[in-house]
Amino acid sequence: MPEPEPTPTVSFDTDPASYKHWTLDVDGEVATLRLDVDEAGGIVPGYELKMNSYDLGVDIELYDATQRLRFEHPGVRAVVVTSGKDKNFCAGANIRMLAQSSHPWKVNFCKFTNETRNGIEDATTHSGQTYIAAVNGTAAGGGYELALACEQILLVDDNSSAVSLPEVPLLGVLPGTGGLTRVTDKRKVRKDRADVFATRPEGVRGQQAVEWKLVDEVIPKRLWNEKVAERAAEAASRSTRPADASGIALPPLQRTETADGVKYRHVEASLDRARGLVEITVFGPEGDVPDTVERVHELGADFWPLAMTRELDDLILRLRTNELELGTWVLRTKGDIEDALAFERVIEQYSGTDWLVNEIRHYFKRVLKRLDVTSRSLIALIEPGSCFAGALLELAFACDRQYMLEGFMEDADEEGEPAQIVLSASNFGTFPMSNGLARLESRFYGDDDAVAKLRQETGRRIEAVEAAELGLVTDAFDDIDWADDIRIMLEERASLSPDALTGMEANHRFVGPETMESRIFSRLTAWQNWIFVRPNASGPDGALRRYGTGRKADFDRKRV
Amino acid sequence: MPEPEPTPTVSFDTDPASYKHWTLDVDGEVATLRLDVDEAGGIVPGYELKMNSYDLGVDIELYDATQRLRFEHPGVRAVVVTSGKDKNFCAGANIRMLAQSSHPWKVNFCKFTNETRNGIEDATTHSGQTYIAAVNGTAAGGGYELALACEQILLVDDNSSAVSLPEVPLLGVLPGTGGLTRVTDKRKVRKDRADVFATRPEGVRGQQAVEWKLVDEVIPKRLWNEKVAERAAEAASRSTRPADASGIALPPLQRTETADGVKYRHVEASLDRARGLVEITVFGPEGDVPDTVERVHELGADFWPLAMTRELDDLILRLRTNELELGTWVLRTKGDIEDALAFERVIEQYSGTDWLVNEIRHYFKRVLKRLDVTSRSLIALIEPGSCFAGALLELAFACDRQYMLEGFMEDADEEGEPAQIVLSASNFGTFPMSNGLARLESRFYGDDDAVAKLRQETGRRIEAVEAAELGLVTDAFDDIDWADDIRIMLEERASLSPDALTGMEANHRFVGPETMESRIFSRLTAWQNWIFVRPNASGPDGALRRYGTGRKADFDRKRV
Repeated sequence: MPEPEPTPTVSFDTDPASYKHWTLDVDGEVATLRLDVDEAGGIVPGYELKMNSYDLGVDIELYDATQRLRFEHPGVRAVVVTSGKDKNFCAGANIRMLAQSSHPWKVNFCKFTNETRNGIEDATTHSGQTYIAAVNGTAAGGGYELALACEQILLVDDNSSAVSLPEVPLLGVLPGTGGLTRVTDKRKVRKDRADVFATRPEGVRGQQAVEWKLVDEVIPKRLWNEKVAERAAEAASRSTRPADASGIALPPLQRTETADGVKYRHVEASLDRARGLVEITVFGPEGDVPDTVERVHELGADFWPLAMTRELDDLILRLRTNELELGTWVLRTKGDIEDALAFERVIEQYSGTDWLVNEIRHYFKRVLKRLDVTSRSLIALIEPGSCFAGALLELAFACDRQYMLEGFMEDADEEGEPAQIVLSASNFGTFPMSNGLARLESRFYGDDDAVAKLRQETGRRIEAVEAAELGLVTDAFDDIDWADDIRIMLEERASLSPDALTGMEANHRFVGPETMESRIFSRLTAWQNWIFVRPNASGPDGALRRYGTGRKADFDRKRV
Repeated sequence: MPEPEPTPTVSFDTDPASYKHWTLDVDGEVATLRLDVDEAGGIVPGYELKMNSYDLGVDIELYDATQRLRFEHPGVRAVVVTSGKDKNFCAGANIRMLAQSSHPWKVNFCKFTNETRNGIEDATTHSGQTYIAAVNGTAAGGGYELALACEQILLVDDNSSAVSLPEVPLLGVLPGTGGLTRVTDKRKVRKDRADVFATRPEGVRGQQAVEWKLVDEVIPKRLWNEKVAERAAEAASRSTRPADASGIALPPLQRTETADGVKYRHVEASLDRARGLVEITVFGPEGDVPDTVERVHELGADFWPLAMTRELDDLILRLRTNELELGTWVLRTKGDIEDALAFERVIEQYSGTDWLVNEIRHYFKRVLKRLDVTSRSLIALIEPGSCFAGALLELAFACDRQYMLEGFMEDADEEGEPAQIVLSASNFGTFPMSNGLARLESRFYGDDDAVAKLRQETGRRIEAVEAAELGLVTDAFDDIDWADDIRIMLEERASLSPDALTGMEANHRFVGPETMESRIFSRLTAWQNWIFVRPNASGPDGALRRYGTGRKADFDRKRV
């Protein structure tokens, strides 16, 4: 199959005034997110976004809206997701887009849409912004999966609007944006009914949809607006969001791009195409710690933890989408350890009581989770002058390996201090992974004593040899070996099969327990990736390519 | 890549006297399973099984040995797995075999080897037969994965023997027989070390292997025999196996094969190639219920539950391996409900106290688990004359859907009784799935009340309409609709993408929680299946095909 390259650079910058496909209306406690896709507004050429179907561009706007709702609209306590088109809630991912896309594009697109839907659930759970799907027309495939990410699903009872997952019968692929998993694990649909549902292209409507637990309620058309408003008001009344808070603005990110790098205010990345890697540096805060939570609000998007998190989020998304051949990300930090710890104490102190600080905590958590599911080898290098302390140390623990320099760089003057790391409460559950464990709990899975012992080590500076002894880093090299050992390690990594690394890392990063979220990225996504490369879906005679041509797919009938 | 077809028919029949690759020695409480692979004894032509590497044929013998140990050698309380070759414990799956095999063959081979290793852990946990890996040479890849399935790993300290998982660096695939999962989840190896280990082709040996928890003990060569015997004796002393039990023989299965079917004593299958399906009938017992446990032992392999389970196991394995294009299995039972229940009461009554009855229970559990991971659509048809009661009802619950006839067949005389099912204690945890749940708990996941309510319904006959109301069957059709509705349903199923069905069923069948075992089949296996079809592994320039040619693989460096 021809695999057209994705467009050179995808940008994730947008704002409500620029949306092509969504409108975001805020009315007191209730916001409405209305999907009205511009058919001609695809992010790449080659398809029309008919029937409220979506592509990456549509989802970039949705992600932006969910972020702005959390930061700019703290007074919003319920979010109604609905359609601006008659009889059509959303037809899911555009099929022609999928059919023409390369395998990496499809997989990356699914990953991002999954993250956004997980973010919707995260907002419902942790921000008191309850999402309600007001399904005012047919919700098919990804359209129904979007509804599934909401806390409640209301379906209009008009004798035609249905919910459906027609991917298996029509396209020969899975409902891969959490569909299969959420139907059974979240909605608790009986699994034999889930099987019937996922093989019935026309879906289920009316009372049967309620009986099967596919939707919460069917509402006659004449009562629709009234009932949707009622459900939104009920959800809003249960929210813990402050009634009188005012939001902070999320201005455009300042980003300077060159051929071999990207610079933000607190994050830099240099692209080394020859070696197939990216060197990422996160800069710590430079003093000026807010002494009150009011000051945090005044700083808003300039408050270092938020500013840094936004930049890192943007960088991860851009690199994942645009730089497929840079298979290793080397992560460093630079800055003052005390300043980093002072900032994170603000987060610890206020995240339980202040909505904004709570948002920042959960945002950093979500960005760390993006790293966890990023199909790149992640290597943390801990050198003198770094500030891997507390929350920033999570960046290192999100990596596949951590190397720490013992002593000083060969050619550096020996002033200052050697590399040090500091554990804090942030490393013991403030930023859980999608498997529900803290990164340290994952690291020492099955060894609770080691984790308990490390709790005693919080707050003090730990140097390389001790860090290695405590198991906090993979290895410590002295200055004589550092440069060579790291170079060789990175060369070796770059020589390995990119696919085998992706599979290996996806297994190692998540040990032990699973949650619905981790199951979506493991069982469901991994199967979908397999199906996406099979000729039965993506070959010239496969179901994805033949859809809409009037010709049926020609399957190799062997079951694997 | 050329995909040679697998040989027409793989048989799983074997016995210790016929083994080419293993010897099984029983010495009192301790058995020794010694791997000494016959290089020329591959199950299909095209490769030599060098360095104690294995193929499906080697693993068929291992499976047979584990079964015979449980049934024929109840006095065995510890099993030492070791090598008959000098310096070479086992090199894992043969690479040339993998390189020449079709995708379905690779996937099916991995599934069977995984099941056998899970069976080894099952014997350790549930049969008091503790497996100990006496790694008396290098254990690489699948060789180390075999050791990982054992309860203890002893490694000889000879300055050369190492354990390793070289799949990623040498072959561009994963250690897919549970390796990645067991290293972190069972052995509790720190995940950054797991990353280092799985990318280091030479592996780890000596004290470092102990420190990293990859093995339990390294033993100097001069103490080897003595220490291995000591560890085996210690494990044996902890076993609850009866000291004086005598085993039962597992004679060859009686099987009649024709072009369009297979007949055993209690199981029949007819192959319908035109419709792409297999119709499987399990026949219930015909009276003559043993009234004492002594009588069960006298009957031995003729005791209906064991005889039926062995036949069903064999049928599943043969169909999975040899009949790839028959994508739907239709399951029926025939027989007397009271007889079926009488037999299963024997199992319930004695499985806690009698070793043989305990073995039969766990064997039927494992065969049901094989169904759960079988990549075929499974449909249960419950008709008059069937005996889906208790343990046999689990066969229906293992299916993706269950259909029940209301009333009688159109052309049947109306004597006798309509179709009925009976719940028993067997349906509430006697035969757990790999996710740790009973099939009914999976079916009603998240609805504990429904399960509790069904417990009240055990022991009585439930007819079609009520079964549908209770959610025990997907649908009930009356005699007028039955034949057509079933025919249409099966035609529709057969028209769907085989790959999409496999992925969908692998998601729906396992809801909710995960265990190490279920994670091996979900996260690890699904990723491996993806990697197996990628050109970076299996293409002409991929790592699997280029291994041993002296030429490095030529990778597409895009990370997906």
